[in-house]
Amino acid sequence: MMENPTYPGAVAIFHGARARCLSVPMRTHAEPGTPLGLDLEALEATLAANRVKLILLTPDFQNPTGTSMPLASRRKVLELAGRHQVPVVEDYIYARLHAREERIPSLKQLDRSNLVIHIDSFAKVAFPGLRVGWIVAPAAAIERLRVVKQTTDLHTDQLAQATLAEFLRRGLFSKHLAKMRKVYTSRLAALDEALRKNMPEGTRWTPPEGGMCLWLELPPGFDASELLIHVKERGVLFAPGRYFYVQAPLPNTLRLGFASLDEKQIARGVATLAELLKIEMRKRQRGVRRAERSRVALV
Amino acid sequence: MMENPTYPGAVAIFHGARARCLSVPMRTHAEPGTPLGLDLEALEATLAANRVKLILLTPDFQNPTGTSMPLASRRKVLELAGRHQVPVVEDYIYARLHAREERIPSLKQLDRSNLVIHIDSFAKVAFPGLRVGWIVAPAAAIERLRVVKQTTDLHTDQLAQATLAEFLRRGLFSKHLAKMRKVYTSRLAALDEALRKNMPEGTRWTPPEGGMCLWLELPPGFDASELLIHVKERGVLFAPGRYFYVQAPLPNTLRLGFASLDEKQIARGVATLAELLKIEMRKRQRGVRRAERSRVALV
Repeated sequence: MMENPTYPGAVAIFHGARARCLSVPMRTHAEPGTPLGLDLEALEATLAANRVKLILLTPDFQNPTGTSMPLASRRKVLELAGRHQVPVVEDYIYARLHAREERIPSLKQLDRSNLVIHIDSFAKVAFPGLRVGWIVAPAAAIERLRVVKQTTDLHTDQLAQATLAEFLRRGLFSKHLAKMRKVYTSRLAALDEALRKNMPEGTRWTPPEGGMCLWLELPPGFDASELLIHVKERGVLFAPGRYFYVQAPLPNTLRLGFASLDEKQIARGVATLAELLKIEMRKRQRGVRRAERSRVALV
Repeated sequence: MMENPTYPGAVAIFHGARARCLSVPMRTHAEPGTPLGLDLEALEATLAANRVKLILLTPDFQNPTGTSMPLASRRKVLELAGRHQVPVVEDYIYARLHAREERIPSLKQLDRSNLVIHIDSFAKVAFPGLRVGWIVAPAAAIERLRVVKQTTDLHTDQLAQATLAEFLRRGLFSKHLAKMRKVYTSRLAALDEALRKNMPEGTRWTPPEGGMCLWLELPPGFDASELLIHVKERGVLFAPGRYFYVQAPLPNTLRLGFASLDEKQIARGVATLAELLKIEMRKRQRGVRRAERSRVALV
């Protein structure tokens, strides 16, 4: 069971293992009575109707939607997982990039049934080029993963581990993380501001509370892949939402990554994006009017 | 199709993927008319009787037997692979550790049908702790492997690659390799000498022409795992041969790794091994005599 939309790499892994992938919709807008993140009613129904073997979740700053699961939802997920005895993989790789001071407890911290397989990495918070991560999980799961890892890569690069160990030992990691959190928080604020200033009516987004990406919805009927063709010519890139769906893709969605650009670049990029979207909207408006005129002429 | 015996990690990978593993015996003694390494008649029969999808070979200093496949055998393997259109994975990781000056051409060098997937690594010739290797293969195979690698580890550690690149750029790798070849060759000579000096009649081995290990056969009826229990108490270790067999294990075989010990340690280790083997042989001799006496008394 996966989130929909989700990280395409995760889908590729399970498809590669010929697993059947079910998905549960993500709520990307905070509406009264519906928390952000995983649709819990859909999760409950999916668990009731299928023999789910594994639940894969990113409760914090999910890729691509940027949503975080509130505390009450986390408790509910664990209750459902416990009732159906389904292990939960918690992808925690973005959680340390929280813009606000407080952090919501992880599924692993809340886990009373020993069902959570917590995966974490230095890739998003330190060095993507050092392929070092870790897993906190029940002993039986670790033992099975150890065997798989051994046949996959024998062991993890030692220079990378030694480098990270020294970085941590010298206390540089927490300094680096504090700095990156500040940088990313400022970039996220710049992105939200630029969107509010430039985006035409009908586009929707909920600013995430951390992480590296924001999920944007164009007005219904627009296709992000088509818009990408135009903005690319002007040196702006984004990821069309359709790449992230396990099923039922919404073509009017897109992911904006803000972590690698400074505030000026973000403002410029969003202005270009908004400008070209408005052009497309006007074209469509004219098209509708023309269609209306033609219709009249034909009657 | 695998060599028997072979590296257990390879067996684990294919078992993990639920592949059916066939095996072809390795010849570990040079007898008139039978080259060392893969039994070519058995290979031919296996290919004729089965729809083999992949042949996995280590033509140079095979782990665990230490054997190398002569040039004529390599040509024959390629001819058979071409006739049956079966890709051949050539594990080349030990080949640079040749004790003699000349090197036999690799299967990849001899390949005219573009069937060889040549895999190589810095692990055996430079730094095992830097997990960097490479593959030379037909474009279609590389593309499929690229997709698998991407879902496995996304990408290879960059610090490790940069470190190796700098090591190569400065010309340090060829110096290091020349030094290690000298060191290993001297250790191999010390091992062969110690074996000739100490081993009782009935033990057999063919000194390899490079690599990191030597394959030893105890007299028939002896079990290397039992001998290991005794030598372990005296601080000597080896790998019982049974761990390496895909099928039909010979319990009287064992693998001696010589790469990580100096000449003195090798001499001491072999002396201990020979001493304890002789004790076991005498015990058995007495047992036989006692059994003979009992038999006489019972008549």
